[in-house]
Amino acid sequence: MSNGRYEDSQLYRIRHSAAHVMAQAMLERFPEAKIAIGPPIEDGFYYDFDLPRPVTEEDLEWVENRMKEIIRGNHPFTMREVSASEALEFFKDQPYKVELIKDLVSGRVDENGNEIAAPAEKITFYTHDTFTDLCRGPHVANTSEIDPEAISITFKKPAGAYWRGDEKREQLTRIYGTAWENKEQLDDYLNRLEEAKRRDHRVVGEKLDLFTFSPLVGKGLPLWKPKGALLRDTLERWLRQIQIENGYEPVVTPHIGNLNLYRTSGHYPYYKDSQYAPIQIDEEEYLLRPMNCPHHIMIYKSEMRSYRDLPVRYAEFGTVYRYEQSGELHGLTRVRGFTVDDAHLFVTPDQVLPEFKRAVQLIQHVFNTLGLTDFRARVGLRDPQSDKYVGDDAQWERAARDIIQACDDLGLTYTVEEGEAAFYGPKLDFIFRDALKRNWQLGTVQVDYNLPERFELEYVAEDGSRQRPVMIHRAPFGSLERFIGILIEHFNGAFPPWLSPVQVLLIPITDRHVPYAESVAAKLADVGIRAEVNSGKARMGAKIAIGREQHIPWMLIMGDRDVEANAVSVRLRTDEDLGSMPVDEFIALAKRVIDEKSLSLS
Amino acid sequence: MSNGRYEDSQLYRIRHSAAHVMAQAMLERFPEAKIAIGPPIEDGFYYDFDLPRPVTEEDLEWVENRMKEIIRGNHPFTMREVSASEALEFFKDQPYKVELIKDLVSGRVDENGNEIAAPAEKITFYTHDTFTDLCRGPHVANTSEIDPEAISITFKKPAGAYWRGDEKREQLTRIYGTAWENKEQLDDYLNRLEEAKRRDHRVVGEKLDLFTFSPLVGKGLPLWKPKGALLRDTLERWLRQIQIENGYEPVVTPHIGNLNLYRTSGHYPYYKDSQYAPIQIDEEEYLLRPMNCPHHIMIYKSEMRSYRDLPVRYAEFGTVYRYEQSGELHGLTRVRGFTVDDAHLFVTPDQVLPEFKRAVQLIQHVFNTLGLTDFRARVGLRDPQSDKYVGDDAQWERAARDIIQACDDLGLTYTVEEGEAAFYGPKLDFIFRDALKRNWQLGTVQVDYNLPERFELEYVAEDGSRQRPVMIHRAPFGSLERFIGILIEHFNGAFPPWLSPVQVLLIPITDRHVPYAESVAAKLADVGIRAEVNSGKARMGAKIAIGREQHIPWMLIMGDRDVEANAVSVRLRTDEDLGSMPVDEFIALAKRVIDEKSLSLS
Repeated sequence: MSNGRYEDSQLYRIRHSAAHVMAQAMLERFPEAKIAIGPPIEDGFYYDFDLPRPVTEEDLEWVENRMKEIIRGNHPFTMREVSASEALEFFKDQPYKVELIKDLVSGRVDENGNEIAAPAEKITFYTHDTFTDLCRGPHVANTSEIDPEAISITFKKPAGAYWRGDEKREQLTRIYGTAWENKEQLDDYLNRLEEAKRRDHRVVGEKLDLFTFSPLVGKGLPLWKPKGALLRDTLERWLRQIQIENGYEPVVTPHIGNLNLYRTSGHYPYYKDSQYAPIQIDEEEYLLRPMNCPHHIMIYKSEMRSYRDLPVRYAEFGTVYRYEQSGELHGLTRVRGFTVDDAHLFVTPDQVLPEFKRAVQLIQHVFNTLGLTDFRARVGLRDPQSDKYVGDDAQWERAARDIIQACDDLGLTYTVEEGEAAFYGPKLDFIFRDALKRNWQLGTVQVDYNLPERFELEYVAEDGSRQRPVMIHRAPFGSLERFIGILIEHFNGAFPPWLSPVQVLLIPITDRHVPYAESVAAKLADVGIRAEVNSGKARMGAKIAIGREQHIPWMLIMGDRDVEANAVSVRLRTDEDLGSMPVDEFIALAKRVIDEKSLSLS
Repeated sequence: MSNGRYEDSQLYRIRHSAAHVMAQAMLERFPEAKIAIGPPIEDGFYYDFDLPRPVTEEDLEWVENRMKEIIRGNHPFTMREVSASEALEFFKDQPYKVELIKDLVSGRVDENGNEIAAPAEKITFYTHDTFTDLCRGPHVANTSEIDPEAISITFKKPAGAYWRGDEKREQLTRIYGTAWENKEQLDDYLNRLEEAKRRDHRVVGEKLDLFTFSPLVGKGLPLWKPKGALLRDTLERWLRQIQIENGYEPVVTPHIGNLNLYRTSGHYPYYKDSQYAPIQIDEEEYLLRPMNCPHHIMIYKSEMRSYRDLPVRYAEFGTVYRYEQSGELHGLTRVRGFTVDDAHLFVTPDQVLPEFKRAVQLIQHVFNTLGLTDFRARVGLRDPQSDKYVGDDAQWERAARDIIQACDDLGLTYTVEEGEAAFYGPKLDFIFRDALKRNWQLGTVQVDYNLPERFELEYVAEDGSRQRPVMIHRAPFGSLERFIGILIEHFNGAFPPWLSPVQVLLIPITDRHVPYAESVAAKLADVGIRAEVNSGKARMGAKIAIGREQHIPWMLIMGDRDVEANAVSVRLRTDEDLGSMPVDEFIALAKRVIDEKSLSLS
């Protein structure tokens, strides 16, 4: 994708137009269908339909072929403005469009169902061939701008979707499509989709025995099995240590808080829809915490602070709980309970810039160590049109200036985007592009003048006056669950050795080599290397296959000659054969790779 | 206390009788008082009164003196059986007694307000001097058995208490007293009370900056400040490592669970009163988890298990939330959210005995390392009279046999007590006697045939048949919060060096010694020793006093001669002076003491 806004790109117009073409083809296949909305999305588009019967693969094949035919017809897209009554009359048999038109006029949502601030100034139709849709555009001028060989219906099983994303409304059938500039791009994308399916962290995570879900425990609440818990803990301890070296102080706070805490912070009722219902305790109401910040603020506030104490940097791997509709849950990347590698820095206004830079450098170090090098930075500012932001203008401006200054000082490549700020202040997000070129928002650093104001935080300045500190919120991983989900897919389960739950698999060739294997495993355990002996009945080849499937970095095969020479034959999970080497030499190699957190295996 | 049952002891009769004497004296002081209940408790007794006005210190002094006078009167205690109507007539002006009599007759509670299984067979009065109480006894035969110089009203500020412990009922005034066999014992006890007040973990914890509470976060929800979080983490990491060495596997599970999970386990509605109200999520109800076991069970159940996989040992520092009345909350020892150092072992029936023993040995190791050597073991069995226990008799018997066998094999000194089992099985508890000779229940190991049944857990036995595993629940600390509260009081804040948040305080004599102090601090940090430099303006004596007050194990004082000799002058928090020694020698000493988890400082 180019650096410009997606909404302004040709690809966006192609996809938006292809969505209309799909709706036309669907209406030809299902004349009784009611049509809902059909926006472009990342990598494609979709359209939601209310259909008289389930869609079959044959239907979709027919629709895809018919779309190509329509595109080849070289139909122009034409726009015309209509009055509300004209629009309502035109769509009188399409109840979803009628609802959209009414909301457009009364200023509640746009034609894609997104909330808008004011009534639409005008209503427009776009028409091509026989199909007309309520639409703001933009579109291609003519279907000839679309390459019929570069479009596809993406999933053979269509998804369900609720009208307006509301579980209480009608359930619709969502059909996804994709469109690219040429067939090569399409094939590349479809290959990436296939690869993504193979790398799906839900599949790989199960294969590697990292986590499980239980309907009896609850949806969106992962249970971390021993190997996954080890991976989690390894990441946590590592980041914890880096943070301590950078002057952060770990704290521990409860997972619930009095509702008044969140009223004071503004998280309630602001984020009410993504929070669980309050729990009544005696005369008070408590919330399963959606955020860690107010808890850390209360620790800051528990004693009088001097400018000499600042910066105060509190860190916690704090588990929070947020409501997500059950249809939106997805493995580890969309859950209802997750652990934020959270920290809150309380600083003087002059410390914002240097502390912001240190926080960014820490995140860069984390990403680089993990080999997540393909990321870009996004400075998120207020949307000047919106009133959802709190705090005064001068502070927003100063914070934005500090963030941009920090990015410049660090030589970061970044974009500045309005409307991407937190409600309490501007921020810097790291958008990581994974092995499949998908974008993920990971680390974040945010400047906040607002919560210190709401909680009336203070410190005694050098001149004895009481001053407000500024807060910096930051999280390199973001959510540990989501981060691990992304890591699983990025590495396809083949984690760097220091993160691999099992680092060494010992494979004795026959039963008589088992005692030797166990003595080597004990030596490895002594230096903290996680080793397992496969002393089962299976043949060597099968054991190696298991090790490879489990992405265990090193497999040590041991037969008579190895025992004699106090050696091991080293096979990598990449299938590379390092041959035989003395046990101590292997231990030194493995220890070095692990201690250096190296991404290579030798 | 002797090894026999407290209820059978002379001290129990003395205290029970002293409670009656206190009620008599109070009624003389407050003729309009309504009397509620007055049982003996550990180390004393209390009586609850409904009074026309607050009690003053003068009142209590008068009452204590009057009690001594009554005791010196050599009044016999006489018992007589009365009919219900006679009892009701006698107490017609005492509404609390009337309620108790009615409940006694209908079989709901005994005269101390405790639930009973069946209506009382008879109603008895005990009379001495002018006072008669509804009472089952036992009492001394004559007040002459009480030493008037060995009684005391314990707290000068009486406590509040709700009638029947129910916040919705009348608030009463609870007056605590104590009684011992002689004045020496009384003085010893009062001294211990004084010392306990000084060691109160709430006071010491604040002084050492370990934790804080915030009304805005919520009652009974500790916020761990950096030094407390470090202490917590040190204990956690240590136990975690010991557990891994013993074949335990850490897991991580969410803090909420579907209500059906707890219905299946039987924790709901069984423990309903100590749980928070369920949270509605879509069509489901979720509970803030009161227990970790069901979560670990679901991990066990997530795959098919073979006898070869057993024992499976899942460990988690799992935070749970339980409701406590706000009046019962107390620092870290009685909280609403706490972290259990939980583990659940899934074993074959034959593995119960050896695994139980290993679990007990692990707990013994934990206690011994911390110098908590003064503990006894209590085997808790079912109360054969009660129907609150689940599971079949043969399994209860087998479990009890295994526990007792394990205790015998390990040469433990233990008592067997009926009615102390968990609802799902018998258990072994460790009762620790702290520096103030107070008893605390710490570690626990429990055998459970019941939850595996309720969750239909299975493993494939050697013969291919499906079998039920047995569960062992165990927790050496019990609750991390409570355990740390007890540790604070036991050590009076002077933790062994490996647990001390700050291990070394460096005190440069003048400003020009600061760089040297910082270089020594850096050396200490390099080997993982937690050191702080006090470079403030205060004088050396004042800095040493601060270090001693913070119970920092080692203070290193450094002046010209130390700098010249690359040495430090070592002062212990016990005030012992180890004189000057080379920096490296001190580092070796400190590192040895820390690594060995030694209880001494040199």
